[in-house]
Amino acid sequence: MPKISQKGVHMPESPIRKLVPFAESAKKRGIKIYPLNIGQPDIETPQIALDAVKNNNLKVLEYARSEGSETYREKLAAYYKKNDIHVSANDIIVTTGGSEALSFTLGSITDPGDEVIIPEPFYANYSGFSTANNTKVIPIVSTIDDGFALPKIEEFEKLITPKTKAILICNPGNPTGYLYAKEEIQKLKELVLKHDLFLIADEVYREFVYDGEVHNSVMSLDGLDQHAIMIDSVSKRYSMCGARIGCVVSKNKVFIQTILKFAQARLSSPTYALLASEAALETPQSYFDEVIEEYVERRDILINELNKIPNLKVSTPKGAFYCIAEIPVADADDFAQWMLEKFADKKETIMVAPASGFYSTPGSGKNQIRIAYVLNKESLIRSVELLKLALEQYNS
Amino acid sequence: MPKISQKGVHMPESPIRKLVPFAESAKKRGIKIYPLNIGQPDIETPQIALDAVKNNNLKVLEYARSEGSETYREKLAAYYKKNDIHVSANDIIVTTGGSEALSFTLGSITDPGDEVIIPEPFYANYSGFSTANNTKVIPIVSTIDDGFALPKIEEFEKLITPKTKAILICNPGNPTGYLYAKEEIQKLKELVLKHDLFLIADEVYREFVYDGEVHNSVMSLDGLDQHAIMIDSVSKRYSMCGARIGCVVSKNKVFIQTILKFAQARLSSPTYALLASEAALETPQSYFDEVIEEYVERRDILINELNKIPNLKVSTPKGAFYCIAEIPVADADDFAQWMLEKFADKKETIMVAPASGFYSTPGSGKNQIRIAYVLNKESLIRSVELLKLALEQYNS
Repeated sequence: MPKISQKGVHMPESPIRKLVPFAESAKKRGIKIYPLNIGQPDIETPQIALDAVKNNNLKVLEYARSEGSETYREKLAAYYKKNDIHVSANDIIVTTGGSEALSFTLGSITDPGDEVIIPEPFYANYSGFSTANNTKVIPIVSTIDDGFALPKIEEFEKLITPKTKAILICNPGNPTGYLYAKEEIQKLKELVLKHDLFLIADEVYREFVYDGEVHNSVMSLDGLDQHAIMIDSVSKRYSMCGARIGCVVSKNKVFIQTILKFAQARLSSPTYALLASEAALETPQSYFDEVIEEYVERRDILINELNKIPNLKVSTPKGAFYCIAEIPVADADDFAQWMLEKFADKKETIMVAPASGFYSTPGSGKNQIRIAYVLNKESLIRSVELLKLALEQYNS
Repeated sequence: MPKISQKGVHMPESPIRKLVPFAESAKKRGIKIYPLNIGQPDIETPQIALDAVKNNNLKVLEYARSEGSETYREKLAAYYKKNDIHVSANDIIVTTGGSEALSFTLGSITDPGDEVIIPEPFYANYSGFSTANNTKVIPIVSTIDDGFALPKIEEFEKLITPKTKAILICNPGNPTGYLYAKEEIQKLKELVLKHDLFLIADEVYREFVYDGEVHNSVMSLDGLDQHAIMIDSVSKRYSMCGARIGCVVSKNKVFIQTILKFAQARLSSPTYALLASEAALETPQSYFDEVIEEYVERRDILINELNKIPNLKVSTPKGAFYCIAEIPVADADDFAQWMLEKFADKKETIMVAPASGFYSTPGSGKNQIRIAYVLNKESLIRSVELLKLALEQYNS
């Protein structure tokens, strides 16, 4: 029997998805499951985007342009301008989700064995994209006690080698909800300029910033045109996770020309989803105002309820819609699976993402879980109640 | 300025797409262009697929399951059964186009420097996916004089090294239109069993087989369960290139589990396109009968007209909707670009794909072009007339 690749062997299982089979078994036993594992909001997609697809008159579902149409990229540039990000249509390549945007970026800037430094915990699928691309992730630890703030720049410098090609941040952060301060972004700028690295920022949660804080894009920094790469997606902004439309943005022309070659090889992003994504740019501000208000309420309820659980530690997220909670168990992977296999209260349980998959330092995050606050308030209150009951039962 | 990767430098330009900017300039000068460069049929998508999207009632455009829904995969298995391919839903992972299916396959079975043997000329984007994956393409020459038949098995054996992981064929072939005979597939089976390799078959043109010939799938061979991998897509079957839905099919469980990890990392294929793809499986046979009849007529007209051009050599395709033509020029890349930049007859010209990008042996295919017969008959006749005039003018 022919062997699969070492890369295939080491490709990580998704901590967000790996418990799904256990959840499906539980459902078959009549258990209701609150899904806190995945960033799939229950928020409705803007009607204008849904209508653009329902009212389409395509007769032939043709390929789209590999880089996205001129009109869509021009409208995207206008949207960015409103967010203090000054780019042109030519600085944008439309991709099949933020996932593909990051995959193409890693392919364009790293060869096998090259390194990318990422503050951990980080979005788990960064590990998958890196493994698929033979890129080595070099984690730099941020801690729950520091609220997951940017590690000290000296710590970054200790990790930089001739193989280092980039620093990758997620801002606001998945899974931490951390929002980088302007000074932190500024420090990263100086670092990448000093060592001639790319600074990649996954900014897909740009709109989800709370408490009057401001989002600082790597694209808004002066003097970083050749170094800054932004990853974006419509998935969270418009609650259109199933569209699979994102983009790569950079003013570095050689880089963008390289991304274009990757984009041409796979021919096109999905045409229907492009219709929805272009229309979504007309979403009124009132939609976002309501959504943000909803997320702030959810966050406040979630954090408030979580803090009532003994021996649980959580850092209040300033953006996105996740938090990392440290819980009183030795092995959160086991506990999360146990909640689906063995636990139920009134035929209900919860699915969370064990946090170990969001770390690449072996053994890290074993007593942490990621919770996505993508459910309505009643469901969140009930979910935390279930977590509390489960912890009591698991630990007794 | 930070450097892009060597991989990025060597990522090939798509021969199918690279002339598009010249075509756009020509259009701006008022020139009408017949696009023979890309396999984008003008055939209408089945109404049942279009309607499934128009009549959808989604309120939240959610992620789909990473591997595709159970129901869609079961329906796919039933469709395959009708094509003498006996697989279950569990043998199928739904992907974002055949492109992603092949990318995930290369990632799952090759590490950097591993080799895949491919009869050339081959679908140009195989080069891109291989480069992106650090896989080395080992070409084995098939010739226009042999009608692009499978090279001798002894020639394959000469190329097999400890790094060889798979043989990849496209059947029916893009760009050659060649349809492998049962005996040829049988020989490949014996070869991969002897050397313990994977046999990957890109069978996206399964339906497009002419002159009463029969398509032989690698999935229909006995004793090849652990070795056979099929790449598929809805793009050509239902003229839904813009859907971006495909799949990987194999009975090798370890392989499919590995593909699943790649699929989970990118979360989901596009949800709207999945609606269309599932509905498309109900397309009546009459649709295919009409489409096949149309393609046969187009092929016959195209080949007949091409054969009238002096010093042009073409092999009659038995499947798919492409042919390779050898033309009396030294550099078809230059000629193809010249037709867009300098040539026009009555303000009309054609865009073809220079064939050199379909070869990986340096210097091969320089006097060949790929023509896709995806336009109506009148357009094809006019296109060949334009080609004839262009050749006369270019060579004088």
